[in-house]
Amino acid sequence: MLNPITPEIEAEFRRALPLKTFPELQDAYLQEPRGRYKAGDALLIAPSTTAEVAQVVKLADTHAIGIVPYGGGTGLVGGQIAENAPRHIILSMERMTAITQVFPQENVLIAQAGAILHNIHQSADAVDRLFPLSLASEGSARIGGCLATNAGGVNVLRYGNARDLCLGLEVVWPNGTIWNGLSRLRKDNTGYDLRHLMIGSEGTLGIITAASLRLFAKPARAGTALFVVEGPSAALNLMAMARDHMGEAISAFELIHRQGLDFIAETLPDIRLPFPEPPEWVVLIDVGLPKALDPADTLLQLFEDAQKLGLVHDGLIAQSEQQRAEFWSIREHIPEANRRIGSVSSHDISVPLGCIAEFIDRGRDVIRSIGDFRINCFGHLGDGNLHYNVFPMPGKSRADHQHQRDQIKSAVHDLTHKMGGSVSAEHGVGRLKVGDLERFSDPAKLQTMRAIKAAIDPKGIMNPGAVLRDIELRQTNLRKDLDAL
Amino acid sequence: MLNPITPEIEAEFRRALPLKTFPELQDAYLQEPRGRYKAGDALLIAPSTTAEVAQVVKLADTHAIGIVPYGGGTGLVGGQIAENAPRHIILSMERMTAITQVFPQENVLIAQAGAILHNIHQSADAVDRLFPLSLASEGSARIGGCLATNAGGVNVLRYGNARDLCLGLEVVWPNGTIWNGLSRLRKDNTGYDLRHLMIGSEGTLGIITAASLRLFAKPARAGTALFVVEGPSAALNLMAMARDHMGEAISAFELIHRQGLDFIAETLPDIRLPFPEPPEWVVLIDVGLPKALDPADTLLQLFEDAQKLGLVHDGLIAQSEQQRAEFWSIREHIPEANRRIGSVSSHDISVPLGCIAEFIDRGRDVIRSIGDFRINCFGHLGDGNLHYNVFPMPGKSRADHQHQRDQIKSAVHDLTHKMGGSVSAEHGVGRLKVGDLERFSDPAKLQTMRAIKAAIDPKGIMNPGAVLRDIELRQTNLRKDLDAL
Repeated sequence: MLNPITPEIEAEFRRALPLKTFPELQDAYLQEPRGRYKAGDALLIAPSTTAEVAQVVKLADTHAIGIVPYGGGTGLVGGQIAENAPRHIILSMERMTAITQVFPQENVLIAQAGAILHNIHQSADAVDRLFPLSLASEGSARIGGCLATNAGGVNVLRYGNARDLCLGLEVVWPNGTIWNGLSRLRKDNTGYDLRHLMIGSEGTLGIITAASLRLFAKPARAGTALFVVEGPSAALNLMAMARDHMGEAISAFELIHRQGLDFIAETLPDIRLPFPEPPEWVVLIDVGLPKALDPADTLLQLFEDAQKLGLVHDGLIAQSEQQRAEFWSIREHIPEANRRIGSVSSHDISVPLGCIAEFIDRGRDVIRSIGDFRINCFGHLGDGNLHYNVFPMPGKSRADHQHQRDQIKSAVHDLTHKMGGSVSAEHGVGRLKVGDLERFSDPAKLQTMRAIKAAIDPKGIMNPGAVLRDIELRQTNLRKDLDAL
Repeated sequence: MLNPITPEIEAEFRRALPLKTFPELQDAYLQEPRGRYKAGDALLIAPSTTAEVAQVVKLADTHAIGIVPYGGGTGLVGGQIAENAPRHIILSMERMTAITQVFPQENVLIAQAGAILHNIHQSADAVDRLFPLSLASEGSARIGGCLATNAGGVNVLRYGNARDLCLGLEVVWPNGTIWNGLSRLRKDNTGYDLRHLMIGSEGTLGIITAASLRLFAKPARAGTALFVVEGPSAALNLMAMARDHMGEAISAFELIHRQGLDFIAETLPDIRLPFPEPPEWVVLIDVGLPKALDPADTLLQLFEDAQKLGLVHDGLIAQSEQQRAEFWSIREHIPEANRRIGSVSSHDISVPLGCIAEFIDRGRDVIRSIGDFRINCFGHLGDGNLHYNVFPMPGKSRADHQHQRDQIKSAVHDLTHKMGGSVSAEHGVGRLKVGDLERFSDPAKLQTMRAIKAAIDPKGIMNPGAVLRDIELRQTNLRKDLDAL
């Protein structure tokens, strides 16, 4: 059982660390932007060095105090908000923001965990390199949080998830020891890959304090197109064809449904929609090509070949950087339009690529069997990652459907699971999907996860209640004690 | 402590499983091809299904019997040979060789762990796809072993190590439960990434029984060149320039030293060397380009641009598939030429890319301080992965330098470590480098590795003595028991 921070314990922390380490606790730390999670009281600690992080963790370990690692606070599944936890530590990385080293020849950048994603982009750009992790929240998300949650975004198709962009980590383990794993190596087969274990563990196994990141050569020439496709299945065939034309040069392949365009027209009239009549399905294709290839020509060639097979009906190829930005602006404003409409239930799911079309068909039937709704299904088609969001019909509000919310969520998640999919493609488990993880995960996977959690964090101080329930951790520990008797 | 298989226990295994599950134990299972490791007596078990693997593991767990998972037996670090272990099980995957499913549209292939790498290549090829893991031993290496050791090879630069090519695993844990993680998903953030923990754990955490693998579109047009460079530093600048020209299209960027060419001339006179006078340093560049780019033209453009900056002096660009094969044949015969000369000490190391030139200079000095030797330093420059091999001078033999072998190995490994490198870039730890792992690993990393091993395999039955010493595992367990008292 975790203990609350008593005044005596707080005094001990304050004696151990400089005054600056204790900024004022603003409400923002206790409540996520959408207000869905709210923590009880906490002590905000913002160390300035890895050694200070280790000091905090050691003290917390001694007193069995919970620690919630805190990056930009942009997570969507409540991983950064410890509801129901006794008075605990919010360990903010906001004072560890340095980009400590850049190796342009090696394509490596080393940053502290608190570095803001956008600043990492700029540092890479300054040496004519690209750090491709790109998210809506990149202006406030911190790299430690991006790695702890294995963030995705729009460039996964070409460059992979956050885990694929990380060469090494520095970590403070729950016992306060520091692992210096800030490797710049491309290949290292010496022992278990603790880096990948930490990435995606959402702060439940330790604290990422710094990371060694992969940079890339900037593609010489970029191009963007909007192609009107028959449907998701044609879109997949188009993607396969685009790969035959361009190899790995496709950075994004995003599916957009008419519902999203209609929402933009309804709520964001300033965003220009380039089609006179919104088509049913559109894909946004972004390519970054070597200098010998002209993006507009290459995309036109793709269009013509795809048209011959009936995969595309119509299309627009950006002829300028301004047009590229306009096309992207449509895709990027869909989440905002969704917010303005107000969803009944949103889902961040993935299914095997070959099942996407069937999933969309069956999903429509499943939702229809519950009631009348508008569905905006869009997202990272190339990764099989759909944002599948269900909205009230015009004239109705989310409040009108409050009672159906859980039913919709379960129905979508059940269908996803049945089709071999994941109910958290890129947002993580946090506190929102702990129940889903238990319901849908392979039991042998869960059992192993619990064994690892109990081995690395036996007191359960790290991000208590996220990913795995505390109670199970306590059971695992008790079982171990029993076995040892 | 592990128990030996007694006649009674063997009878129990034989009762539980069909007769075919017990092939005759050939010497090859007990001794690796080079004869450096030799196991004592063992019972060979070759299950035909995952359920049978689980049965074997459960029985082994009950009796605390060691299990050595066995793939193609091609490992170079003794991971497949349990020296000093009491009579144990060699669990061969040789009867689980099926390629069970291929999804060309999804670029996914699912295979049992015993599938031979070459056969996976052929299955991918049959649907016009590429599985890029490529090793000298691909004719006998099995995919389970390739994943357990996170194999590398010549295509890592473009496509990554074995771990980067795996979407999911099926695993039998040391308690006999089966984790069905054969995912076809590109994105799945539900819980700890057990896949990456298993990959590279060298059979010490469980048994990989099947894998879901990533396929790729075949590059439309391939090209190969041999460029003569000033030295390793110029080679790295050339690589950066090649990336600006071609993006990710460079599949291999291999460094070759004159010593390797001389060894080929000396021991393999049938291999044609295309330079009248062997140059000091050569790079072999292999590219796979989209159909709009001509490989020979693109490589010529690169050569001309590189020549302007003085990075390359001379070069050959393959004008036919036959010439491509000839160029590759040189690179591929270096290991065989090395074997024929007979190295005093061989090293599979990696260093940060920016340190390669300095490492080669300092390495030469270090070896010179020990004695007169010939050094053949070659390998996967793009990955910072050098095969750094030390040979006797002409007229001397490896036996003449037996007494200096450990000194050379230590000196090379010390230098590697000092420069932020890894003493096992792609071959793994096995039994050969257990001491190196202890000597060079971050203590907090080792501690966490031991905690994970103790949590997942508390009796230490999985590949005992590989990666981590048994004694430490016992200590960790005893410490846990003590804590629990």
